[in-house]
Amino acid sequence: MTQSKEPAPRASRRGFLAATAGLAAGSAAGCLAPATAAEALVSAGATRAGQHPIVPFWGKHQSGIVTPAQPHTYFASFDLVTTQRDEVVEMLRQWTSAAARMSTGQPADQPRAEGAPSTSADSGDVLDLPPSRLTLTFGFGAQLFIKDGKDRYGLAAHRPEALVDMPIFTGDQLVPTRTGGDLSVQACADDPQVAFHAVRQLARLAGDVAQIRWVQTGFIAAAGASATPRNLMGFKDGTANPPVADPGAMDQFVWVGSEGPDWMRGGSYLVARRSRIALEHWDRMSVAFQEQTFGRSKLSGAPLGKKSEFGPLDLEATDHEGNPVVPENSHVRLGHHTSNEGARILRRSYSYNDGVNFTAERWPPWRQGLEYDAGLLFVCYQRDPRSGFIRIFERMSKFDMMNQFVTNTGSGLFACPAGIDKGGFIGQRLFEAAL
Amino acid sequence: MTQSKEPAPRASRRGFLAATAGLAAGSAAGCLAPATAAEALVSAGATRAGQHPIVPFWGKHQSGIVTPAQPHTYFASFDLVTTQRDEVVEMLRQWTSAAARMSTGQPADQPRAEGAPSTSADSGDVLDLPPSRLTLTFGFGAQLFIKDGKDRYGLAAHRPEALVDMPIFTGDQLVPTRTGGDLSVQACADDPQVAFHAVRQLARLAGDVAQIRWVQTGFIAAAGASATPRNLMGFKDGTANPPVADPGAMDQFVWVGSEGPDWMRGGSYLVARRSRIALEHWDRMSVAFQEQTFGRSKLSGAPLGKKSEFGPLDLEATDHEGNPVVPENSHVRLGHHTSNEGARILRRSYSYNDGVNFTAERWPPWRQGLEYDAGLLFVCYQRDPRSGFIRIFERMSKFDMMNQFVTNTGSGLFACPAGIDKGGFIGQRLFEAAL
Repeated sequence: MTQSKEPAPRASRRGFLAATAGLAAGSAAGCLAPATAAEALVSAGATRAGQHPIVPFWGKHQSGIVTPAQPHTYFASFDLVTTQRDEVVEMLRQWTSAAARMSTGQPADQPRAEGAPSTSADSGDVLDLPPSRLTLTFGFGAQLFIKDGKDRYGLAAHRPEALVDMPIFTGDQLVPTRTGGDLSVQACADDPQVAFHAVRQLARLAGDVAQIRWVQTGFIAAAGASATPRNLMGFKDGTANPPVADPGAMDQFVWVGSEGPDWMRGGSYLVARRSRIALEHWDRMSVAFQEQTFGRSKLSGAPLGKKSEFGPLDLEATDHEGNPVVPENSHVRLGHHTSNEGARILRRSYSYNDGVNFTAERWPPWRQGLEYDAGLLFVCYQRDPRSGFIRIFERMSKFDMMNQFVTNTGSGLFACPAGIDKGGFIGQRLFEAAL
Repeated sequence: MTQSKEPAPRASRRGFLAATAGLAAGSAAGCLAPATAAEALVSAGATRAGQHPIVPFWGKHQSGIVTPAQPHTYFASFDLVTTQRDEVVEMLRQWTSAAARMSTGQPADQPRAEGAPSTSADSGDVLDLPPSRLTLTFGFGAQLFIKDGKDRYGLAAHRPEALVDMPIFTGDQLVPTRTGGDLSVQACADDPQVAFHAVRQLARLAGDVAQIRWVQTGFIAAAGASATPRNLMGFKDGTANPPVADPGAMDQFVWVGSEGPDWMRGGSYLVARRSRIALEHWDRMSVAFQEQTFGRSKLSGAPLGKKSEFGPLDLEATDHEGNPVVPENSHVRLGHHTSNEGARILRRSYSYNDGVNFTAERWPPWRQGLEYDAGLLFVCYQRDPRSGFIRIFERMSKFDMMNQFVTNTGSGLFACPAGIDKGGFIGQRLFEAAL
């Protein structure tokens, strides 16, 4: 059983099981002989290597931020349950290593050495799947730095000013079990099983150091790489994003610069919101009303009064009666950077679909019954949430016509550190600065 | 605005919005002029037609049964809330028409005539998406025929013998709000938004005639058309299915024959089970134990003692100590047709992932906390559930080693009528026989 000490072939999901299954076979009647399994796996691994696109994990920035959105996500917030700083660091090391491995299609763990516990190094449910452009993006919540007034890990002095306590917005109906958390992990991939798999391995590796606080699955309709996907309201979502292909725009709006602490330079702030949409009601509205609410044409995505999705938004235009073509309280007007002192954020949202649940409405005719628990996992990245999401949403939460169809039930703000070079670990510069 | 009376182009998702948006534009400042929108749509529709695979809706059998499984599903159970038989028939007519249209990428409704209410004919969130091999499969629950002792729609005498009340199996933890229902609709598609969209339109068309009782989303990892997908336990699922390409096998095991009532000949019985899997515990088991539980190799999917996934299952084989190579209580042994008087079913299951929820375990060390609410939406089709799922699961529910990781929380048995020719409606032969 010496093959259990061999590293798995690169870019093959299958190597690890050769090792663990080989270990196991000695004690289990009827398993394949280890040599046979290992041989089969080496050849299987070789044929899979390099055929499928991989998003690099190591680098100046974390992946999954300006990465073109993969169609599936599994977002998880974790609470740390240890009091030991060293355990947090060790877990982040393990998470980093596992994330890098999984992003290339390898199993989360190195195969165990002979004599080690024989539990799986990986749940194995993605064995036949390509890396699926998996990205894992990590973030730190305010409570990592200080929680209930306690500086748990000696990090309090290093909490960035931009990592504010999120204000409570008009209309917020936040559920504590869908809000906040010490750490965030967003997995995005071409396959829902690959995204879930990745977080599942990290949660297992977290052991008794961190526990899941809340999770949310999400998806984007596969409209094709060049098209702006439609959300469940039927409108194109993301048209007005700053251009990810323009490094200058990203430096201006997304990446933290010299204004931030060293460990956040090249990082970004993530805001996630779970926005339930009353689809039953929305579907009863006329297209004209929906378009007035959005401020865009439903079909083309063009701003009202324009013909092209990417046509400029003209907030000054009026119709023959002198009324604004793009209504005062429309979503697109209130969200636009010219309405918000130039504030721009990089939206990277997903639809979510959690089935149905019982809802007692709070307005006549007081319908009570099952309604869709579906809507938007709103995700955005920005250089500073105070001049990004918070500035924009402060007004939208009060005036956006769309609010009558949307209820925010969950929320999180996380500082996503800069990317790292191979051999480092997520947040290393923070923990080393705070030594 | 005469264009609102024109039918939408075939195989184009976009025609309908031209009509409804055109209607709406007259009353909304800033919308595109109707003629412009309509022109854009006709050309957009023409370029989309015929490029993408479509699963035919009309035919001898309903689609979505022997159709190779698409990667996403949205399963819905409906309760009828009308007392009027005519309203049920009218809704089934509308559903049939909408299903046929949506399966080719058209909107659910015909565009409304001028003067009709201006609500959307369709929510429009799949406007840019291909038909995505959408199938919609309809079924009738026992309560359609008799509920609380009442013959609501004059159908009681036509309830098939095979549409039994489901027995309560050992270990069942069925939740009423995830169990049963008068009607089932299973949407399957290449895109999760297309599957949800389809049921959402049907639910809207149901108006006050039927309401959603429970729903479940599901997915299959995209392992490629030729590979057996792995479930969340990491094992290949579906290897031992009867061959869908063999019409004789399908007639023997899946399609109702002359033993059934006329309206069920060419139909099939659907069993759906929501099987939550304790993934946290499963992941702590050794691969060897997992393989003993399944009775198959995790990597290859081969029966224990064999080398090939599709190798014959040898239930007689013993090891050198005389113990069975495929354990007595393994999943594959208990499920195999040779253990069940030849019973075979066509499994067409999906994984589901509903995030996490609070769980208080019932065994030491009495862990209480968040656990994955994820597992299997087990779906199978068969000619007669009494000699199919019920016979097989009666024993499995008692003896299968896998039961310690699986809790069945929802269940449904539905009679899926034969397919129909264009112009008919789902269940037409039942309702006409019962006139």
